Amino acid sequence: MQVNGFPHTTLWYDPTQQGVFIIDQTLLPHRFEIISLTRLEDFCHAIRNMQVRGAPLIGVTAAYGLAMALAHDPSPINEAYAAEQLLATRPTAVNLRWAIERVRATVAQHDGAQRGAIALQEAEKIRREDILNGEAIGQHGLTLLQRIYHQHPDRPLNILTHCNAGWLAAVDWGTALAPIYKAYHAGLPVHVWVDETRPRNQGASLTAWELQQQGIPHTVIVDNTGGHLMQHGQVDLCLVGSDRTTASGDVCNKIGTYLKALAAADNQVPFYVALPSSTIDWSIDNGIDEIPIEQRHSKEVTHISGMDQDGVIRELRLVEQSPAVNYAFDVTPARLVSGLITEHGVFSATPASLAALQQKLAAALHTNKTV
Amino acid sequence: MQVNGFPHTTLWYDPTQQGVFIIDQTLLPHRFEIISLTRLEDFCHAIRNMQVRGAPLIGVTAAYGLAMALAHDPSPINEAYAAEQLLATRPTAVNLRWAIERVRATVAQHDGAQRGAIALQEAEKIRREDILNGEAIGQHGLTLLQRIYHQHPDRPLNILTHCNAGWLAAVDWGTALAPIYKAYHAGLPVHVWVDETRPRNQGASLTAWELQQQGIPHTVIVDNTGGHLMQHGQVDLCLVGSDRTTASGDVCNKIGTYLKALAAADNQVPFYVALPSSTIDWSIDNGIDEIPIEQRHSKEVTHISGMDQDGVIRELRLVEQSPAVNYAFDVTPARLVSGLITEHGVFSATPASLAALQQKLAAALHTNKTV
Repeated sequence: MQVNGFPHTTLWYDPTQQGVFIIDQTLLPHRFEIISLTRLEDFCHAIRNMQVRGAPLIGVTAAYGLAMALAHDPSPINEAYAAEQLLATRPTAVNLRWAIERVRATVAQHDGAQRGAIALQEAEKIRREDILNGEAIGQHGLTLLQRIYHQHPDRPLNILTHCNAGWLAAVDWGTALAPIYKAYHAGLPVHVWVDETRPRNQGASLTAWELQQQGIPHTVIVDNTGGHLMQHGQVDLCLVGSDRTTASGDVCNKIGTYLKALAAADNQVPFYVALPSSTIDWSIDNGIDEIPIEQRHSKEVTHISGMDQDGVIRELRLVEQSPAVNYAFDVTPARLVSGLITEHGVFSATPASLAALQQKLAAALHTNKTV
Repeated sequence: MQVNGFPHTTLWYDPTQQGVFIIDQTLLPHRFEIISLTRLEDFCHAIRNMQVRGAPLIGVTAAYGLAMALAHDPSPINEAYAAEQLLATRPTAVNLRWAIERVRATVAQHDGAQRGAIALQEAEKIRREDILNGEAIGQHGLTLLQRIYHQHPDRPLNILTHCNAGWLAAVDWGTALAPIYKAYHAGLPVHVWVDETRPRNQGASLTAWELQQQGIPHTVIVDNTGGHLMQHGQVDLCLVGSDRTTASGDVCNKIGTYLKALAAADNQVPFYVALPSSTIDWSIDNGIDEIPIEQRHSKEVTHISGMDQDGVIRELRLVEQSPAVNYAFDVTPARLVSGLITEHGVFSATPASLAALQQKLAAALHTNKTV
């Protein structure tokens, strides 16, 4: 996607400098800065402190983190240590575990110094696939958006999104925003309602910035507003990402997603979730009971950062003395989800439909292996 | 209620200084400052800029504003001008109109200089009634809270509230928080989940401060969190205020209330609304179609104020370039409301039940007039 008019990705490996480069997303929308990650600690810090965030990008970053650790010390002990450190950074996104397990499976049959190079190749492959997945999600979502738009072709298509599931949450394209980018380039008149997404404001800071950089019409709203807009016919569909989806179609995503899904159901507004299939946790069925919900520091609620009139990024206190809690995600039950947009097409949020996707994935894996 | 251990109200008239004194609520929770209002412009400014806010307190403030204007110039022309200026400050809260009409009806049969004194007496009466109404709401709500608490007497009663409908929204006691104050003093173990309530953060700034000053256990959460808590059995009831309620029981309250009511219904959590009967607009039935929703300045969304580490209250920019909209209220349909706690008891949110309340009010008015 574009940054100041030039194409960009969120993460890339530079072999000449033997480092991974990322956008420090904690400084957006106020400052655009690139930083490099080389040591395992850099990768863990970047994931834990949300310099990179979003399920797909967390997975890619973790893969590179493990690969760089193996390039430095290819021993199985170091592999186990690095995997453990990376897994401990964020508990909810399933892509973290998925990416680490994938790199470990690839290096398992290899010995010695080549393990680092092989791991790095696998990380590169995960990165490339992420871009292709995002584009495929965009293409499948475009068909859906075109269909909904043509129900009311006299007015722009109003899409509400929560948090950031754009290209900043992946390597490029993103998940929930990928169909919107495709639709915009296909000439569909789109307008995006951007939930600010407290407490970390990824909507106001990242989604709004992304859309503004691509020139896509959008409006920032506080998280409380979506229900009112849906009551008044101002939302044609909701489109969000997912940090983990169960085999039955329950969707774990940024805290507050469930409230928007309830409002969508109450107002007959379609509620779609866009996700790469790597975000599906095939081992669990009941999202509310089985997905661990990350609790982050209460300071993210009681304090806020932004830019003052002198251009200095500052932190302010919002709450005096009172305690606060900070759950990062919630679970939207499958019954509230109209469909799951994946790189393999749109699936119903039902066990049967997702079982069909799982078979498709297994068949594709088998084909790849036998080729 | 208590401020730093001393009893306080939000607004009082001081005859020796011929002025009305209020707490400047825009400075809370960081600073506690009293300011005086004397000219009509002071009252309009205080309401418009939310130095006073909350439907009951807006009504009382408007009554005093009109009375002070009449004390200065008792002419009908000035009366009409002052009423018009005050009515234009906030479009949604019905108490504003109710209080102004009440003062105007009282002075209608009087001439000359005594009109100011009579208006002031009526404003004093509205103020006293507001305190009594809050206490009565508290008492009726207490019975309800005791009943819900005794369903699970092994753990504290968890109440979720949105925005501020505490004593700061009235003269004393408040509406939604009045039953909580009564319950706390009756020895019921209560704990309050405080929605921060973006964009103006009245929950984090006012409700949390109120509860902290009275020593009542509470936890601040972002507005996105309530659904997750309800899914996990951590909320025993929701209790909110109302800026305007229709004759059919639709409740207009701070933006985001509707989303909490949806989550309450989805998780079988009782959802109660506390309000003085003056908040009911008997002239309308359909809240979604008929209640005008105030749109406030987008800067309340794109910028935020708080206290920096040097104790200076500052404003920060959260959003770069992107536009924002700021709807201040939404409407919760009566079907999602478990009951309305008024100064005359708890009523169902149905036309029939509210018609009974209306008859009760008419009978009380008749009794007062014939006495």
